[in-house]
Amino acid sequence: MTSIGIFGSMGRMGQAISAALPEFGAQAAGGVDVGGDPAALARKADVIVDFSAPAALEAHLAAARAARTPIVVGTTGLAERHHRMIDAATAEIAVLQTGNTSLGIGLLAALVREAASRLGQDWDIEIVEMHHRNKADAPSGTALMLGTAAAEATGTTLAEAGVSGRAGLTGPRAAGTIGMASLRGGSVIGDHSVVFATEGERIELTHRADDRAIFAKGAIRAALWLAGREPGRYTMDQVLGV
Amino acid sequence: MTSIGIFGSMGRMGQAISAALPEFGAQAAGGVDVGGDPAALARKADVIVDFSAPAALEAHLAAARAARTPIVVGTTGLAERHHRMIDAATAEIAVLQTGNTSLGIGLLAALVREAASRLGQDWDIEIVEMHHRNKADAPSGTALMLGTAAAEATGTTLAEAGVSGRAGLTGPRAAGTIGMASLRGGSVIGDHSVVFATEGERIELTHRADDRAIFAKGAIRAALWLAGREPGRYTMDQVLGV
Amino acid sequence: MTSIGIFGSMGRMGQAISAALPEFGAQAAGGVDVGGDPAALARKADVIVDFSAPAALEAHLAAARAARTPIVVGTTGLAERHHRMIDAATAEIAVLQTGNTSLGIGLLAALVREAASRLGQDWDIEIVEMHHRNKADAPSGTALMLGTAAAEATGTTLAEAGVSGRAGLTGPRAAGTIGMASLRGGSVIGDHSVVFATEGERIELTHRADDRAIFAKGAIRAALWLAGREPGRYTMDQVLGV
Amino acid sequence: MTSIGIFGSMGRMGQAISAALPEFGAQAAGGVDVGGDPAALARKADVIVDFSAPAALEAHLAAARAARTPIVVGTTGLAERHHRMIDAATAEIAVLQTGNTSLGIGLLAALVREAASRLGQDWDIEIVEMHHRNKADAPSGTALMLGTAAAEATGTTLAEAGVSGRAGLTGPRAAGTIGMASLRGGSVIGDHSVVFATEGERIELTHRADDRAIFAKGAIRAALWLAGREPGRYTMDQVLGV
Repeated sequence: MTSIGIFGSMGRMGQAISAALPEFGAQAAGGVDVGGDPAALARKADVIVDFSAPAALEAHLAAARAARTPIVVGTTGLAERHHRMIDAATAEIAVLQTGNTSLGIGLLAALVREAASRLGQDWDIEIVEMHHRNKADAPSGTALMLGTAAAEATGTTLAEAGVSGRAGLTGPRAAGTIGMASLRGGSVIGDHSVVFATEGERIELTHRADDRAIFAKGAIRAALWLAGREPGRYTMDQVLGV
Repeated sequence: MTSIGIFGSMGRMGQAISAALPEFGAQAAGGVDVGGDPAALARKADVIVDFSAPAALEAHLAAARAARTPIVVGTTGLAERHHRMIDAATAEIAVLQTGNTSLGIGLLAALVREAASRLGQDWDIEIVEMHHRNKADAPSGTALMLGTAAAEATGTTLAEAGVSGRAGLTGPRAAGTIGMASLRGGSVIGDHSVVFATEGERIELTHRADDRAIFAKGAIRAALWLAGREPGRYTMDQVLGV
Repeated sequence: MTSIGIFGSMGRMGQAISAALPEFGAQAAGGVDVGGDPAALARKADVIVDFSAPAALEAHLAAARAARTPIVVGTTGLAERHHRMIDAATAEIAVLQTGNTSLGIGLLAALVREAASRLGQDWDIEIVEMHHRNKADAPSGTALMLGTAAAEATGTTLAEAGVSGRAGLTGPRAAGTIGMASLRGGSVIGDHSVVFATEGERIELTHRADDRAIFAKGAIRAALWLAGREPGRYTMDQVLGV
Repeated sequence: MTSIGIFGSMGRMGQAISAALPEFGAQAAGGVDVGGDPAALARKADVIVDFSAPAALEAHLAAARAARTPIVVGTTGLAERHHRMIDAATAEIAVLQTGNTSLGIGLLAALVREAASRLGQDWDIEIVEMHHRNKADAPSGTALMLGTAAAEATGTTLAEAGVSGRAGLTGPRAAGTIGMASLRGGSVIGDHSVVFATEGERIELTHRADDRAIFAKGAIRAALWLAGREPGRYTMDQVLGV
């Protein structure tokens, strides 16, 4: 039975992961939170999932490297320097970093890449998401990930192609741009749609999260897949096999 | 047979109205465009529809008043002073001014008012619209009309409650605001959704325009309804009976 | 503080209602389930909510009548004879019977009536719903309620106008019919859309239930509204004020 | 300049193809309809598009074979024996047969295959389509094509897995089935959604046809791609490169 160590065990995701482990025939190697001993847990676990805070990432990666234990990094709000830490760690251990552990979102991103690369520049790309009223940032991290997937598949970057917040006299839509729009309201866990529109037809690729448990389940599935892997950087696409 | 005079007869809407008249058992009293004689046409017609330009509105209203002929004003881009001209004219003739002559949009606006006034402040209101890639302004005039309907029904104004273009660290959604988002792409004629979201549930009220002919047909229906009415200001709601 | 008696207190809805009471500043007068004493509870409570089973309805109504206590009947699967029992009870007590206690669904039904009565026979009506994979009946009771609302507003009945399960060579759509379609899958709590479609345009009125707690909350709101009312039959519309 | 022969030139699709040819820098080699001479046209054309009737297919294929001219077959309502005729022809000429020449639908089918093969049996598949009120069959041919794509990707057939017209006491959804639902109303050209639903999340893949011209354009694009190809059976996927 695979034994999973949980970094950030007292957070909402950490607790959800603990609760869902039995359903996957896995067990907790234990959990640590602020003030705990990640190094000891890393030695006991077959694989680690980290949903803590960016400030803790350096120590958590060090613990995983020292113990040679693969790690799934689901912590959000990472800056460029955190990604460099992760890159450095992948020389010694397997690391899977992702902004969204839902399997459905992982597949949606793959479908967006496929569609964007096939449809060509005649098709305009727009992304719209809706989240609950307490979400404090826009667009969502997942919308940015989908926008990045679309941008890369059309040979550009989201920084260059992304357009947010149309208002006023915008003029006609610039070819090759990717529109981003964010709705907020109620208790919506997270809906994302990527719309491809051309003369006379549209394709809409939508994901609806109905239950937060999907993120915990996806994280466990990723951890089970990552356990025992060679050092390197892995992605949710590989877990899905796309 | 009711005889309809068309101001702005060479424009896209003017031509569509001419084409659709027979289907309604109505006939054209004639049409005028830049350089024509609106006063003469106003005398011949039972009712006028005006889809011309704001600059022509003053002369067109004067022609209608002189002839005591009711007029449907569908010209868009009106400023505050145009609305004052219309108000002045309503002392002598029947005027129906509207930013969208589709019957479906007219009903949607009525449903939005009903929903907004019943649901109360626990329900967040968001409006999202999609139009073709060549539309040069955002949000659409129709989205603004729907936003105004929602704002008035909750005791505020769109100027005060409207929020456009969420991006970055927005913080939690402010209670009582109305979010507006605009998608652009392909050849979409016009889709509008008003979303009401609260803890645990959502209502979405959507209109999809599949064919531009609906605007011409709605204008004719409004004109037939307006012919013979007493002086005053009328609305599409009254045509619909809501 | 209003005191609410819960008939069917051990069921999923009964428990959810107990859990949500404090949020409304209400308190439980107690609960009864199979084998309990509804008459005693009815005497203690200001108002009753009943989410039990059709077989228990007769005894529950008798208890409410004996104690002159108003009752919200949310039990589903009622047959014609249960409705006759309710009608008889309304001579002595206030009864509010409904197949769906969500406030959003209550409003949606009102909007559907409004739209159906205004739009006329040129607009085709279609209803589509999606529920989780374990739901054993189709269409959902709520879809039937919405279909009934649409049918009544157009001067017919769902029994006469309803069309389920189009497949094969159906021929053109018969005017005045109401199509019903049911999707099943995953864990969807309940999505309902009523589509009105005519030449060139469509209106879609949609409700999405994201959390089952909305049904408990709506039942409590209905109970608080019903407490102290005169004998008679009441509806969710009245709770909403539509 | 590629020269395209049109079989069924007086039909709605034949005329739309003629009208759209200049936009693609192609020209008509001519058109034939009932009573014309397909053999002569086949000799003049670089490639043929056939939107005629099943009864004419045998003669049309014979003309194409005699002239060694590739042919796009878009005629609908083909029976098993027509497919055998096509198979026989592919020994001598390039044939691309398809039930839907829209590029967007072609891509949607590819995305459905990808999603169905990756997501596994935990995800229920449902297909819902809406067409105008005059459509006489259900589900649409395109919905059947999408259902077939989903069935094949999950190792079954639509004949075995397809479920139409849920109504009454259906019992829980059987695992591995594919639900099909059809809405009819107004003038909708064609909307198709394939829904994948599992515990806690959903993916919806949707295509909306806003203008019938997309079918003519897709047929021309397919013809330009097919001209000059080796004998064999080709598909829209290859035109799209998916």
